[in-house]
Amino acid sequence: MDVVARRVNVLNNHLGTRFPESVPTSSLEKYRAKGQKINQLLLRQVFMGEFNPRMESMRSFIEKSPLFDHYSIMLLTQQEKYAKVLELIVESMKHEYSTYQKDLKDPAYKMTISENLTEFDISLGTRSGVHLGLYTDTIQNLGTKKHEDFINRAYSIKDFGSFALTEMGHGSNVAGIETTAVYDHTTREFIINTPTKTAAKWWIGAVGKTANMSIVWAQMYVAGENKGVHAFVVEIRDYNTHEVKQGVIAGECGQKIELEGVDNGFLIFKNYRVPYDSLLDHFSQINSEGKFKTTIKNKEKRLGIMLGGLIRGRIVVVLSSEIALRNAVTIALRFAAVRTQFAYGDSAENSILDYPLHRHRLIPILAKVFAIRAGLMHLYKMFRVIYPTVRENPESAELNELHSILSAYKCIATSYSFTGIQECRESCGGMGFSAYAGLGRLRNTVDVLLTWEGDNNVLLQQTGKTILKLIQKSFKGIQIESPTLKFLTINLENIKWPLKTSELFTYDNICKVFEDRICFLAKKAIEKLQKNTEKYNSPIEIWNNSLVNYVNTLSYAYGEYILYREFNLIFENLKKSCSATAEIIGKLHLLYALDCFERSQRIYIEFGCTYKETIIVKDLHTQLCNELGDYSINIVDSIASLDKCLGSVLGCKDGNIYERLVNAVESEKDVYTKTSWLELIKTSRTLIELPSKSS
Amino acid sequence: MDVVARRVNVLNNHLGTRFPESVPTSSLEKYRAKGQKINQLLLRQVFMGEFNPRMESMRSFIEKSPLFDHYSIMLLTQQEKYAKVLELIVESMKHEYSTYQKDLKDPAYKMTISENLTEFDISLGTRSGVHLGLYTDTIQNLGTKKHEDFINRAYSIKDFGSFALTEMGHGSNVAGIETTAVYDHTTREFIINTPTKTAAKWWIGAVGKTANMSIVWAQMYVAGENKGVHAFVVEIRDYNTHEVKQGVIAGECGQKIELEGVDNGFLIFKNYRVPYDSLLDHFSQINSEGKFKTTIKNKEKRLGIMLGGLIRGRIVVVLSSEIALRNAVTIALRFAAVRTQFAYGDSAENSILDYPLHRHRLIPILAKVFAIRAGLMHLYKMFRVIYPTVRENPESAELNELHSILSAYKCIATSYSFTGIQECRESCGGMGFSAYAGLGRLRNTVDVLLTWEGDNNVLLQQTGKTILKLIQKSFKGIQIESPTLKFLTINLENIKWPLKTSELFTYDNICKVFEDRICFLAKKAIEKLQKNTEKYNSPIEIWNNSLVNYVNTLSYAYGEYILYREFNLIFENLKKSCSATAEIIGKLHLLYALDCFERSQRIYIEFGCTYKETIIVKDLHTQLCNELGDYSINIVDSIASLDKCLGSVLGCKDGNIYERLVNAVESEKDVYTKTSWLELIKTSRTLIELPSKSS
Repeated sequence: MDVVARRVNVLNNHLGTRFPESVPTSSLEKYRAKGQKINQLLLRQVFMGEFNPRMESMRSFIEKSPLFDHYSIMLLTQQEKYAKVLELIVESMKHEYSTYQKDLKDPAYKMTISENLTEFDISLGTRSGVHLGLYTDTIQNLGTKKHEDFINRAYSIKDFGSFALTEMGHGSNVAGIETTAVYDHTTREFIINTPTKTAAKWWIGAVGKTANMSIVWAQMYVAGENKGVHAFVVEIRDYNTHEVKQGVIAGECGQKIELEGVDNGFLIFKNYRVPYDSLLDHFSQINSEGKFKTTIKNKEKRLGIMLGGLIRGRIVVVLSSEIALRNAVTIALRFAAVRTQFAYGDSAENSILDYPLHRHRLIPILAKVFAIRAGLMHLYKMFRVIYPTVRENPESAELNELHSILSAYKCIATSYSFTGIQECRESCGGMGFSAYAGLGRLRNTVDVLLTWEGDNNVLLQQTGKTILKLIQKSFKGIQIESPTLKFLTINLENIKWPLKTSELFTYDNICKVFEDRICFLAKKAIEKLQKNTEKYNSPIEIWNNSLVNYVNTLSYAYGEYILYREFNLIFENLKKSCSATAEIIGKLHLLYALDCFERSQRIYIEFGCTYKETIIVKDLHTQLCNELGDYSINIVDSIASLDKCLGSVLGCKDGNIYERLVNAVESEKDVYTKTSWLELIKTSRTLIELPSKSS
Repeated sequence: MDVVARRVNVLNNHLGTRFPESVPTSSLEKYRAKGQKINQLLLRQVFMGEFNPRMESMRSFIEKSPLFDHYSIMLLTQQEKYAKVLELIVESMKHEYSTYQKDLKDPAYKMTISENLTEFDISLGTRSGVHLGLYTDTIQNLGTKKHEDFINRAYSIKDFGSFALTEMGHGSNVAGIETTAVYDHTTREFIINTPTKTAAKWWIGAVGKTANMSIVWAQMYVAGENKGVHAFVVEIRDYNTHEVKQGVIAGECGQKIELEGVDNGFLIFKNYRVPYDSLLDHFSQINSEGKFKTTIKNKEKRLGIMLGGLIRGRIVVVLSSEIALRNAVTIALRFAAVRTQFAYGDSAENSILDYPLHRHRLIPILAKVFAIRAGLMHLYKMFRVIYPTVRENPESAELNELHSILSAYKCIATSYSFTGIQECRESCGGMGFSAYAGLGRLRNTVDVLLTWEGDNNVLLQQTGKTILKLIQKSFKGIQIESPTLKFLTINLENIKWPLKTSELFTYDNICKVFEDRICFLAKKAIEKLQKNTEKYNSPIEIWNNSLVNYVNTLSYAYGEYILYREFNLIFENLKKSCSATAEIIGKLHLLYALDCFERSQRIYIEFGCTYKETIIVKDLHTQLCNELGDYSINIVDSIASLDKCLGSVLGCKDGNIYERLVNAVESEKDVYTKTSWLELIKTSRTLIELPSKSS
């Protein structure tokens, strides 16, 4: 309805536009002609991966559906936005949905549906991800046979689930949550309570309005004794009436910076009784005598293991970061090709994409998109092998490796994405500040990814811990089996910089630089930890005072190294079918490495580089940006989301930025209305009486 | 009205809150006890500068006025927000206003009123700045005796003005605008036209609804000849009816990322006739014979000079950056003191501000606030001397120096502010993503400052050009008179790093490092330019290919150096009255320098530092962050805006973050309402029929 009304409005305004017709001709075709060497179909297939055919099918569905329209969503109220996002998810599910059986067959499948939804908006991926990822996965991981019905009800959307872990007072320190679930043996029930204000479950997606079910995490008490944090699947709204259950208070957390399609809410419990079977009892049980049993004795460790199976949410953060950044750089590059400013060479005015400075700003972002994408493929691959083993083998070295890599990827992907989108926003100048450019929505949404699914600064510590533990093992002569860290040693003599001429920038040499740097940083981190043992008493103090500039830098360097290696697979894949495309993407791959070095220039000092050696890197970086600028439009054309997913007047394939901007502006209801607060203007005129003659 | 209604709502909800009462006790007082050495009154006076007494008077006025309330503004519609901002400005003017006479007496005065408004919100500073800055200043600078009435009407708000320079197709390249003003000698009028879509005046503040007047910039044609871009003061809405004038189309530019209190609009002209006296004719005139005369022959140069007097807008950007960053770091530090997470040492849970990593994230931001503030004082000082001379002497070396410094400051201040606010947002975790935290509003508003009043990337080139021109002069034996660049030379032997032990980090040594680096970068930029003369033909190509990593890096380094020097004046000022406070702020000053080095680590390579030498800087940086963390709450207490100006549930002086958050959340109208789109949920349940037995 609103969409139809809006379309009529747009059409009317367009027919009756008050703007002059004449516009400059697009320069997109000029760029498309420059970059013809790119085999777009091939590049798209390799970039998207093996799921591409099914994702294309969903894309053509979205393309045809009139419901997917960013501009009409912008005009909705908050409550309408909540509804609209659910409507879009339901609409997509009519086309394709997952089931428990499909998930057991291929655990990556569910995430590629998320990819499709996220191409339109992260809100869609989040709303469905909370339900089918966090809620359903928890039951799959921690439930037992008797909970299977919940799983099937979830996949068939009989229930809407939510995931209530975070509290107002506790985010990162989940072991410190305050909600209690006291076991009452007389009725074989749990009594759930929110003892303080800060114990309210907070920011819980779908709790605001949608969910009837929730996984509630609480300190479990059995016979007066705290048995640690456990998960309970409970009803929060009545299935038939959708009224909040007696003993539960549910509400909305209110206005946010962005992500307006997600109804984040809070939960408060007042002596809320739930049956014993609410406990997801794969790892811990209370037997019929009321005795607590568990296969993992240590409370903190048990909580870590229970949460350790929730891998999908974090992978979805990586894929969301990639998609948002790809959408942003698509918008920024197409805009830069069309937008002209100043004269340069023999044109009247040149595309701003002609300028070296502009290429220097945008091309490294394109390289990062490929790097994150390669990382995502890497995660899918590992996940498919490891996820099916998690329930039975929750402490495997492989799972640990996956977590360590995922933590680093999550931080790197989100920070690339946020800073990259911001650079895209700035590179579009004032036009980028318009809401119709779509860049504000992308940036403000990605912002939250920096924090949720593990705060970036906290996560980097986890990766660092894993690496340092491995090194400690190697001290004891235990061989490092991690496939990504086999090279690890601190028996490092003076490291040498091998990139002394531009011919020496080979894949092997660059890998060697990354590896040597990781060893160097690990060594320095260990030295710092040792030094701090003399200065501080508690292990936590020693650790905390070693984080800044040491451990977290190490984790970041490690993540970038594996991304560089995985990016190489894209290049190798292309080489099999089209050497011209491979050559260009190979340059983008090299640029990615140089960009890593240039962003953390301390590497040059660590390797004892001369000024001249660093200038070789810098100049090669500039040169590659200039060369790749010519191909950049064809590269983004190959990997771009649908125009209607971009939702940007600046980023469309046809390059008609000014017509689209005017259309968007003229379809706002107040565009030409008269000031509704004239009295205020008149009042202000009477305010100041100057002593002079002027009136 | 809405405010009263809201207050009742808040009160009701608070009395009837559904949340448990118990909350943790605040840790702000623990920190306040740690930092008692700070003389808060003194620090506030020195930080705010000589205008502080009058600013305090306006602050107590704002404190008392019930109209200033961020939470109620959040609930308004777009049109209501436009009105509200105007209402707040008018309200402030009841307390204090500027006049032409006051402005002639002290040109800095008007900007300190902007400071007051901006402490509440940048929208207020912008709405009033467009009118009293851009509009009024242009008439003061470029008008003649006959235009004086416009000036007085502006100060007494008889007229509301706007400033129509930017067009849809032209931002940075103002010489390329398309709007035309053709002189018709038969009627002695100008005929203004918008020939193409891209010629529409775009983003013009106050044009959406408020303004009845505008300064319109257009290509002036006299007897068929283009005489370059000139400024015309024209009526766009009828003074009495406020209807848009015949021949003019005015509308709203629509939704933006933020800055919702500013009614940005567009202007289109269709054969709009205005009298000759609309031309602001200080530099160019058309005489009674219809002949064009000008005191500055070169068109481009003339335009540069005409715009060169508009200094205040850019200074206001610097002050807005400082205030927004100060507000953000106040919020983040107070939150960090109150918020606890994990155990560390002997507490149950520690303030996150206890953690070295958290201090490392926030304390350098505090140092940057002081640096920008020092830069602002520097600008006020220069501006008061130079502005009165601009009309008669628009090409003075002093004005050129002011522009060069201001360009660098504008870029540095805005980029510090944007990235700093984002770090503050992230440091508050999920809480920071709540709109009630205020950090999203601050960041999204500062975002636009990166672009307007000169795109940062373009502005840095201007500073670079000035420095390189001075060096060229010195080649010819002309002495460099610029007070900030006297040291400039490229006769630089191997530069030496003097900071070899922590005792050597003196003011003089650090200045020497900055100065040597600027000389080094200038030399490298010149070498690069010379090398590029062999590679490229046109001067523009040579220049553009030298920008990346060379010219713009030089400009940035120069700006940071002067900020460091100006920051020293704050330290010296404090030393006169309180050595304890001075000692602490002295450490913040040193931290600022170290932070500059650590953010552009190429400096170490340029100076040929050893790894060990760089570690001395890094470790001292960490140590200072740790030491200063203890004083940070008392420092922000000294310089903080009013609680009601911060508009943040996380940042208030009393530290009651959880109560305030719950109050804000519970006063939203939909917090506890039932889902209004139940049908959609029911529909979705019928969507998927699984083959299995489960229903």
